[in-house]
Parts: sequence; structure tokens; C-alpha cells
Amino acid sequence: MSREYQRPLATGGLRLHLNENTGGCSPRVMEALRALTREDAAIYPDYERAIDAAAARFRVRADNVLLTNGLDEGILLAAVVSLRGSAPGDPLEALIVQPAFDMYAACADAVGGRIVDIPPLSEFFFSVQRIAEAVTPNTRIIFLANPNNPTGLSIHRDTVAAVARAAPQALVFLDEAYADFSGETMMPQAASGEIPNLIVGRTFAKAYGLAGLRIGALVATPEILMPMRRAIPPYSLNVFAAAALPVAVEDEEYYEWYLSEVRGSKKLLYDVLTRNAVRFWPSDGNFVLSCFGEQLGMVLEELAARGIMIRDRSGDPGCAGCARITAGVLEHTRRVAAVLEEVLCGARR
Amino acid sequence: MSREYQRPLATGGLRLHLNENTGGCSPRVMEALRALTREDAAIYPDYERAIDAAAARFRVRADNVLLTNGLDEGILLAAVVSLRGSAPGDPLEALIVQPAFDMYAACADAVGGRIVDIPPLSEFFFSVQRIAEAVTPNTRIIFLANPNNPTGLSIHRDTVAAVARAAPQALVFLDEAYADFSGETMMPQAASGEIPNLIVGRTFAKAYGLAGLRIGALVATPEILMPMRRAIPPYSLNVFAAAALPVAVEDEEYYEWYLSEVRGSKKLLYDVLTRNAVRFWPSDGNFVLSCFGEQLGMVLEELAARGIMIRDRSGDPGCAGCARITAGVLEHTRRVAAVLEEVLCGARR
Repeated sequence: MSREYQRPLATGGLRLHLNENTGGCSPRVMEALRALTREDAAIYPDYERAIDAAAARFRVRADNVLLTNGLDEGILLAAVVSLRGSAPGDPLEALIVQPAFDMYAACADAVGGRIVDIPPLSEFFFSVQRIAEAVTPNTRIIFLANPNNPTGLSIHRDTVAAVARAAPQALVFLDEAYADFSGETMMPQAASGEIPNLIVGRTFAKAYGLAGLRIGALVATPEILMPMRRAIPPYSLNVFAAAALPVAVEDEEYYEWYLSEVRGSKKLLYDVLTRNAVRFWPSDGNFVLSCFGEQLGMVLEELAARGIMIRDRSGDPGCAGCARITAGVLEHTRRVAAVLEEVLCGARR
Repeated sequence: MSREYQRPLATGGLRLHLNENTGGCSPRVMEALRALTREDAAIYPDYERAIDAAAARFRVRADNVLLTNGLDEGILLAAVVSLRGSAPGDPLEALIVQPAFDMYAACADAVGGRIVDIPPLSEFFFSVQRIAEAVTPNTRIIFLANPNNPTGLSIHRDTVAAVARAAPQALVFLDEAYADFSGETMMPQAASGEIPNLIVGRTFAKAYGLAGLRIGALVATPEILMPMRRAIPPYSLNVFAAAALPVAVEDEEYYEWYLSEVRGSKKLLYDVLTRNAVRFWPSDGNFVLSCFGEQLGMVLEELAARGIMIRDRSGDPGCAGCARITAGVLEHTRRVAAVLEEVLCGARR
């Protein structure tokens, strides 16, 4: 079985299909990037300021942080390090609680690991017991996301801790890509070693609007990070990313503005979906998983015809009939809400 | 044994220690980057134009090219794909002809492979026979560089072909990071499948002055590239890199100017080294390996005191007493040549 991440086609129009920041990054970041010179472009970057800025933002020490070329690279590194030595006759295993971000399986597969999927229960109920039952002596990494993508649902920190206890020989990779929107984090437990096999993944792609610059971070104890520090290419972040990060973190006003736009946008989506009797899951992320059932194809088509892209997730386990809609700036959400109202109302007539 | 890439300290001064482009990138590239917007920074990049530009530059088809986050990522990907399944009791092997770029060993080690070093012969003579003798059924990748770093020496294409024939079950990774300066390439043989187990690595860091943007490329048949396409994170290049590449490739005037500066700089270095009876190896790259013998420590110190950094390579196999000096723009090389003259002359008095 080979599981590959499928890069969706990205054309113009309203991009509500990749959970991007639809407002663009902070204007101050762009100013800083325009001040970079031809010489800056030509030399290998230095990361000291960027690492310090990330550590300060995360309230951890600099040696608890490993910056990565987007969190995707962090996921790949964690897979490389935990699954190396996986032999065809005696494969090392990655546990993935489905539905999940495609990159976990793609990376585990790429490094030769065996993927063990935990299929979803009704309402995506998260069961520590089912994970514990799937753990074997060969389990080396367990991927969790908090809040989860594509469901938007959170896992309680006690539950994460219980998973970590159930598999002490495995790394628990807690993907907090969307944690800016939930306000919940387990970075303290990962950095302090309180949960010694926990590693947290973060990204500046979402709330900070830096997806194009590729800035992710792994947060854990220095011991957990050490093999990943060894495996990561030494100049993984580009110079624009290294320059953007300290400025982005400083512009708290922009950050707070964007979080409030996302909150407002989710409310707008909940309203239109409720009015039209569309099932959805209240989300702790910047997106809403919505179950259009048999109308899904029609909804996707009608939105596409109006230049609005949302993400078909109906192929994900437990997500039949579902699409994921990014909740970004209010102005964009009003457009998609109006079109949804029109399309869903029209379908009822 | 764990072999890690050591990122040299990079402070101000004259940077002649990392084989960077000391002239900065093309001004047209900088113009294009300053035209990017806040929205561009916030979305996941599209690579179509960048891939087409690279393919046109390399005179291969788009499906012969995989762009990577610097060539370092390409080296890591090749190691991941060829050495996965390496078990502690039955390790898969990477052959490295020493002295070599540190990243080959760092990556092979990171993914759990076994490193088999081929120590240098006198004058770095390249022996196909010694490689062939080191090949075992577990050999999965052979790293070669053309021209080599840190020696600056080239391998004839017939020799590379002979290595590939000697290990048909292994990938021959031919690192052409410095091939812009030699004008020789084996991309045609790799892309056409004429040598079916050959993959060529390229970078836009050196001649194009884009080290800070992180743009590398792997060139091979689609079959060889396929597992690496699966392993690479889907948004590996940042949006600034994707925008820079087509513009950089178009500015042939800048490229030719830089190549001629490097030629002139090497001549200047050869002259000062010859006058002062310092051994060196005439280089096909943008650097000169110079053997200062017992004077090495003094030379490094005196240059550092004047803000000039060159790279101590005395720890590399066969390189006792050697340093590597980047040959960039003439103006910079005149400075290092004058200081070398002064320091070496002074030492003789």
C-alpha cells in the first residue's frame, strides 16, 4: 500500500479549501521582507533570532524548539527518526487515528513504516482504549492532532497523556497546527518532559498567514529533538522565513484580529448550515467540517461555478458526504455563506 | 557512529567559507520578489512555472525534474528512499568517496544506513576499481560529486558510467552543485535513462546566488524520481523560491558575469598561492582547496583577524593542512589575495 499526499489544484477564486489564512500575512512582515537585499538572498541563513522569537512565543526554551520547513517537514522528520530500521519482515508501525491529515500516512509510508489506521467511531469519539489495543511492541509513533483536521474536534489533554502512557516506547506526535484557534496547547508538557514521549508540532502557516514561507516548529525536550536535529538539513528554513518569523510574532494586533475574524466566520457558517439543516461539527480550528450528504456533489459544483473552492473530504474515513470549509476573514465567509444559502434553498424548492 | 553536519558560525565580514555567491543574486530576482504580496505569503505555492523554468534551463522534460528545498533536501530524500528498510542486523549501505560534502554521511546516518567510506588515494586519484571492490549486495546508494567539494576536481563521465555499471542495484547520486562552474553535466544521461541508475543533483545556490532561498533540483528518469516525489513534502519550496527561479534563469547576462568573475578569482588565487609556494588543486568549482600545511592555523587566524572567513578542511580525509577558499567576485578575491600575500610573505621573513 502506498499512500501519497495529493496536492489539490490551486487556481484563482476564493480559496477556502486549504485552511489558509485568507487575509494575507501581517503588513509588517511584508515590509520586513521587502527590506531584504540581494546579498541576503545569496547567503545561507542564520536562525538565532527566529528560534528565539519562536521560543518566546511558545513560552519554552530555545533548545525545546526545532524550526522546520513547514510543519510537513517536521512530520517527515519524526517519521524518519521513529521508523528507521523498519524492515520488510519486521515493520515498525505508525498509528493514525482516522480521519487524519494525509501527511501522517504519506510520511510513514515514504520511510518504509507500516501504517496502522484506527477507524473512527460514531461522532468521531476518541477512544484511548482502541488506541491502546492497537499498540504493539513495534509501535514507534502515534499521530494525533489537536484540534483535529478535518473534524475540528479537540482531544482533552488528559486523554493525550493517557495515550502517551499506553505506548511508552512510541513517540506521541501531537499536531497543533490549528491550536492558535483553540487556544489550547500541550507545549508545556512536551518541553518540560512531564510527558517524556510527547512532541508537539506547530505552524506559522495558519493564524500568522505564512503558509507560503514555510515555517513550522517541533517542540519537545532536547533529548527527543536531538535525532531530528541530526536528520534535518542544516539550512532548512529560507532567509525570508527566518526574517518573517520575529516580525510576525511581534504583531499581536494582527494575530488577534485574525483570530476574531475566524471566530466570526465560524459563527456565520454555523448559522447558514443550521438554517439549511446541514450537519456540521462545531470546530476548534479555522474550518468547519460539514455533511452535505447526497447534495455534496451539487454543492461543490455550484460553489466551483462561482469561483469558490472548498475541500471534498468525502473519501476520508467517517466523512461520507462531507466537505471542509475554511473559515477565514468575514468578508470571504459572507460570500460563501450567501452562495450556500442560495444553493441549498434552491435545492429544497 | 553518528555523523552530523556542523553548521559553521556565520558572522559578518568577508564570507569565503561556504562557497556562496559573494555577489548577491540577480537584481531582477530581487525586483520580482519585492512584487510579491501579503496574500502570496499566506497561500501554499504553485510550482508549475518554476518547474518549467528549471526543465528548460537543464534541457530536460518537466517530469525529469523534482525541485527540492535546497539540494540538501534532495540528498536527504535520496538517502531516505534508497536506505529505508536498513535493519540494524542487516544494514543497507551508502558508499562515500572521501573527501566529500558532509551531508552525504549526515543523511545516510540519519536514516539508519551504514556508511562505507572510500578513503582518498594520493592526489585524490579517483579509482573505479576501489569503488567496485567496496560494493556489496547491500549497497544502495553511491555519492559522487562533480566537480567534487572540497577538492574542486572533476570525474570524467566515462568514469561515472563505469561506477554505475559496477553497482546496478544502487543509485548513483551525482552531485553537480558546482557544475555551473565546470560547464560539464550528466543530466542528459540521467534524464534519458542512458544510465538507468543515475540521478543528478543541482542547486541554484551557487552560480545563481540563491542560497538563502533554498532551491535545489533532482534530475533523473520519472521512474527513479517517483519514490522521491512520494517522500517529499508537497509544499517543499517556499513562494519566494518559486517566484525567483524563473527570473534567475532568464537573466543569462548576470549568470555569465558571475561565471567570469569566478574564473578571474580562481586565477588570482592560483597566482598568489603559486608565488608563495602553497600547494593547491586547480578547481572546476567556485573555490580552491589550498594546502597551507603547518601554517594553516596561522593563516586562518590572520585572515579571521581581518574579518575574512575561509573554511578549515584539515579534518577531511586526505586534506591535512588544507583550507577551502571561495572564489567569488574579483573585488573580494583581491582582498583575500592581498592579505594572503602579506601573511605568507611575513611568515617567510
